Amino acid sequence: MDTRTGLPVVGMVGGGQLARMTHQAAIALGQSLRVLAQAPDDGAALVAADVQYGDHTDLAALRTFAKGCDVVTFDHEHVPTEHIRALAAEGVKLFPPADALLHAQDKQVMRERLGELGAPNPAWRPVAEPADLVAFGDAQGWPVVLKAARGGYDGRGVWLVDDAAQAAELATTLLAGGTRLIVEERVALRRELAVQVARSPFGQVAAYPVVETVQVGGICVEVLAPAPGLPEELAVAAQQLAIDLATALGVVGLLAVELFETPAGLVVNELAMRPHNSGHWTIEGARTSQFEQHLRAVLDYPMGDTSLAAPVVVMANVLGGQPGGISIDERLHHLFAAEPGAKVHLYGKQVRPGRKIGHVTVLGDDLADVRARAARAAHWLTEGTPA
Amino acid sequence: MDTRTGLPVVGMVGGGQLARMTHQAAIALGQSLRVLAQAPDDGAALVAADVQYGDHTDLAALRTFAKGCDVVTFDHEHVPTEHIRALAAEGVKLFPPADALLHAQDKQVMRERLGELGAPNPAWRPVAEPADLVAFGDAQGWPVVLKAARGGYDGRGVWLVDDAAQAAELATTLLAGGTRLIVEERVALRRELAVQVARSPFGQVAAYPVVETVQVGGICVEVLAPAPGLPEELAVAAQQLAIDLATALGVVGLLAVELFETPAGLVVNELAMRPHNSGHWTIEGARTSQFEQHLRAVLDYPMGDTSLAAPVVVMANVLGGQPGGISIDERLHHLFAAEPGAKVHLYGKQVRPGRKIGHVTVLGDDLADVRARAARAAHWLTEGTPA
Repeated sequence: MDTRTGLPVVGMVGGGQLARMTHQAAIALGQSLRVLAQAPDDGAALVAADVQYGDHTDLAALRTFAKGCDVVTFDHEHVPTEHIRALAAEGVKLFPPADALLHAQDKQVMRERLGELGAPNPAWRPVAEPADLVAFGDAQGWPVVLKAARGGYDGRGVWLVDDAAQAAELATTLLAGGTRLIVEERVALRRELAVQVARSPFGQVAAYPVVETVQVGGICVEVLAPAPGLPEELAVAAQQLAIDLATALGVVGLLAVELFETPAGLVVNELAMRPHNSGHWTIEGARTSQFEQHLRAVLDYPMGDTSLAAPVVVMANVLGGQPGGISIDERLHHLFAAEPGAKVHLYGKQVRPGRKIGHVTVLGDDLADVRARAARAAHWLTEGTPA
Repeated sequence: MDTRTGLPVVGMVGGGQLARMTHQAAIALGQSLRVLAQAPDDGAALVAADVQYGDHTDLAALRTFAKGCDVVTFDHEHVPTEHIRALAAEGVKLFPPADALLHAQDKQVMRERLGELGAPNPAWRPVAEPADLVAFGDAQGWPVVLKAARGGYDGRGVWLVDDAAQAAELATTLLAGGTRLIVEERVALRRELAVQVARSPFGQVAAYPVVETVQVGGICVEVLAPAPGLPEELAVAAQQLAIDLATALGVVGLLAVELFETPAGLVVNELAMRPHNSGHWTIEGARTSQFEQHLRAVLDYPMGDTSLAAPVVVMANVLGGQPGGISIDERLHHLFAAEPGAKVHLYGKQVRPGRKIGHVTVLGDDLADVRARAARAAHWLTEGTPA
């Protein structure tokens, strides 16, 4: 407990933009997020009062960090499962627990468990040797999607494999490098959806409206809330699936379920157990932001209202463009002049091509209008030009 | 400029809840507010990464603080005018400028200037000796309102004086103690209103909707946005008055104009040149919060959209009740269970009777419902009981 405020202390391992925005939400709850960052220029370290430095793979650093925290949670999935188990055995309260988080860390574990639970998987199999991949592709039809079981994000650790020759070469190289692999059919998708739920230790679960995520090159560029034209029964099915998974896996905190919408129904793509890019729209677009909700969940507070704050909400990611050109400060001037209603979130990062440096959110009534405004606003920050 | 982010550095003198919530807004703009606090348990010092310590009346401390800030602004009105002038003469950019801020620091200066500008003052006069007060009361009718020209807030520095005998005694004591005084007629008010505007160095001004502020014992307990049943022409007149004052006084940043609504029209009560309690509703209730707007103004960014985010917004202050009883943490549990849509803002303060320790905001469609929910939510935090 923080004796200055009488409130429990939440620690977050990782100092990126998710910790940065969680700290922002924590302030309203009377909290000051304790952050384990790697460097003073990490997004959260730039803005939080209570920062420690250390590596998230270093058990001793994690142990020191956890001292005095009432609960420890995570900005990313990269803390080794065995470290989380070791600290839990020492009495540290960590959410999500290791047994839940494992399903967001390891795609093979996730696929196996989803299969046991009867949740909608694509066709898939583990790839122990190149022949497994070739056989799967020959049976399912090429191309197929090869994935590293651990460590991938934003399109990294995912390869589209076109034929048997490419499969044999790629799998040989990756397996020789020690990368554990699974392969999935390339799903005939209409579009990608995502749904966030939050679950408390008590077991309360609250679901956000289902959103559409628009991806380019494996990176999410835009989120539309609610998912346009999604039939009510599919929306309810997606929310129910996420609630069931959160409960079955024992998640505490946020669970983001990324989904493919296919002609045959929904298929689970990925799981994340933390605030997620597909939920950034909730900061202004829902009555309770995913960051506040994650804090409420790990603190075992009752969940907040997940209703939409406007009929249409669009979030557009800001990916760093080429360095040079007009400064970020000048870009903000132009953007704010052009779009007084656009809500900007910058993560305190240096611009590098393709790097997520922030996002913008626009609320309104008309999808085409809101989407165009969000795209223009993001373009100002990305390129320093309106379009 | 912050070389890590390429963005200008904003410094705020004072580490209270206004700096705390300004830092929260700064995070989204890619900023990290630099705060000059007095103690490590100041509300903003608990949450901000970039904190210096020093007294706001110490010119040397202010000078050190201002080094490396692109612009300096204020959490309160207590920085001596001569210090602001001295720093400005040394090239520091301070907003609002001393010549503007003086009107929020000194009630006599404010009344004189409002008179020159033709803005609606109550009947008033300076009180240089007790006889001035007695004569004013005899002429205007008792009771009258005696005010310290400087330093009052939340009902402090204001005395309701019932008759000539009390007037003579009180004025004698206060004047002997060195308190400069003015007296004002006791206005026959229907209710109190407030309007916020923000003005940039460029001269852009943006006005928020007019709100009703409900006071108990000189302390604001509730803000209703928009002011219920306010005729459109009065609302426009109030916004125009605030815009004209911001422009005439050369305000940069937020200006809050507190007004009396009387049978004869609007009368100016007080001015504040910073984010203000009467604007806390804007955090969730307007598209741009007053804290973001203040930052945009002092950074000379174009102003954000001031539209309401819902038809009815009610903010209720949380005043510390008697110490003891259930903890703030437990109160939060009960409040969140009872009101999932209530937005809580705690300031990191120890509970003391009557001390503002936070506020809650509720959005909705029906005034009576929203107001009841906000009151219940505030009551949970104040007293640890629902009503």
